Amino acid sequence: MNQTISPEALAQLCSDTMHRNDKASLAMGIEIVESLPGYARLQMQVRENMLNGHDVCHGGMMFTLADTAFAHACNNSNKVTLASGCTIDFLAPAYQGDWLTATAQQRSRSGRTGIYDVEIHRQDGSLIAVFRGRSYQLKGHVVPESSDQVTSPVT
Amino acid sequence: MNQTISPEALAQLCSDTMHRNDKASLAMGIEIVESLPGYARLQMQVRENMLNGHDVCHGGMMFTLADTAFAHACNNSNKVTLASGCTIDFLAPAYQGDWLTATAQQRSRSGRTGIYDVEIHRQDGSLIAVFRGRSYQLKGHVVPESSDQVTSPVT
Amino acid sequence: MNQTISPEALAQLCSDTMHRNDKASLAMGIEIVESLPGYARLQMQVRENMLNGHDVCHGGMMFTLADTAFAHACNNSNKVTLASGCTIDFLAPAYQGDWLTATAQQRSRSGRTGIYDVEIHRQDGSLIAVFRGRSYQLKGHVVPESSDQVTSPVT
Amino acid sequence: MNQTISPEALAQLCSDTMHRNDKASLAMGIEIVESLPGYARLQMQVRENMLNGHDVCHGGMMFTLADTAFAHACNNSNKVTLASGCTIDFLAPAYQGDWLTATAQQRSRSGRTGIYDVEIHRQDGSLIAVFRGRSYQLKGHVVPESSDQVTSPVT
Repeated sequence: MNQTISPEALAQLCSDTMHRNDKASLAMGIEIVESLPGYARLQMQVRENMLNGHDVCHGGMMFTLADTAFAHACNNSNKVTLASGCTIDFLAPAYQGDWLTATAQQRSRSGRTGIYDVEIHRQDGSLIAVFRGRSYQLKGHVVPESSDQVTSPVT
Repeated sequence: MNQTISPEALAQLCSDTMHRNDKASLAMGIEIVESLPGYARLQMQVRENMLNGHDVCHGGMMFTLADTAFAHACNNSNKVTLASGCTIDFLAPAYQGDWLTATAQQRSRSGRTGIYDVEIHRQDGSLIAVFRGRSYQLKGHVVPESSDQVTSPVT
Repeated sequence: MNQTISPEALAQLCSDTMHRNDKASLAMGIEIVESLPGYARLQMQVRENMLNGHDVCHGGMMFTLADTAFAHACNNSNKVTLASGCTIDFLAPAYQGDWLTATAQQRSRSGRTGIYDVEIHRQDGSLIAVFRGRSYQLKGHVVPESSDQVTSPVT
Repeated sequence: MNQTISPEALAQLCSDTMHRNDKASLAMGIEIVESLPGYARLQMQVRENMLNGHDVCHGGMMFTLADTAFAHACNNSNKVTLASGCTIDFLAPAYQGDWLTATAQQRSRSGRTGIYDVEIHRQDGSLIAVFRGRSYQLKGHVVPESSDQVTSPVT
């Protein structure tokens, strides 16, 4: 008898696997706060080497946080999925030491494509960026299919 | 008599000033290849700590390169200008060791807003991403206005 | 003593005024279902002359409905505001006779710029398009400022 | 022996077929000026029933023109291809009586997806909108495959 793990546990397992191998996110100190099917919440603190010439957080660093949250939300059902494109709008700046939280939520998924919305909030609760990602599903799994099934003998 | 420096020299001066203070771009090894009014060409090499969990260059790192090229193209006429939003489409992956070149070109600028297109090419000449940035001009200058004027006595 | 009308009544007044003058929307049979500050809900039925060569609703007609909903949501606080740019993603087709509802919601507004999200649903409740609009506020009012104030004598 | 028609003639044939069935474009008076593989140029005149409440051309009508040009450029190699999403930036208004020309150009196409850029110019040559379309190729042909092949007996 096959006993599959829950979608929630599978999402966590996919995120753990992805994050462990994501050198760019690790280098930036990005942390996975929560990963549920089609949803992910990540955070990072703005470091000095994330600032641009105006002494605010580089837009690219904010994008990277949002894009990583998007990647977790669209891969954590264990189907390898890539970003085909993204749109970001910057609403307010972030400064050194700020904690930023990116929350990604699936809006649509059918066939091979999907749409995900990500919001970035600052620790004071203000919304500082909105991001929309377009995903494209490939063949393949984030974790081996055997990982999400536990065979337990009927006793 | 005031003798102003050329737009080309001013663009270079603005880019030099911006780049010297852009800690994020410096940390990633981004280099300014060329800066002309409304135009900029930048390059970087994909390092191991720019890879994501699929062992290809993180989309956020490609975005950061494009966004920085956009920033140079829209600030190098010496008016402080921010990115209000950007769209990126990913066409092909980049791998560790690849050299990426981002070329930013002004498409439109009137009033306080502008549109800039950026292309990212790999060293083999293939186009791997297209980016469109929306700019918003603030008050203020990248370099002091006195920097772009040389007073020379009439002799 | 000045007695101003409520924001809700002002939103309705702005939408009525805009809609009466919007020849394109009227020609397409677009109807204003609801207009509240920063929010609008509009609907239209897909007519034969809205179909493209694949016999589904032309993307431009779906965009027009969404763009009009966006215009109401960003103008109904009685500040003349234009669309500077929009992104639309098409999720599913619409057919002749379908009733489409576009719901626009303000996500951000500060200074002269704003972000609005619009969703288009079909009569069966399915989400068929998502739209994000960027707004830019001009000087001027949709209805004369005197319209939103009623002087009532103290009795 | 099979003798295929040229890509240029096939592009024209696809555009003729699409346009004849595109009721929305015909209703708006959109005309196909030129159709070459991966490229299309269309025009229309702004009519009174294309104006919005500010008495300028409704953004939805400009989008529809651009979207139609995009459709021709991405279908005229005789593979049925849909728009999955589009971004438009409005740079300047158009008025009643203006002639608008939309020029669509393929930027990228590989696998099932592609990127197309469209520019809209006014008759005075000014650029009034830029549009970027994302395409998704389905199975099927715009014109029957037999249409683009002429069997001629060897004599």
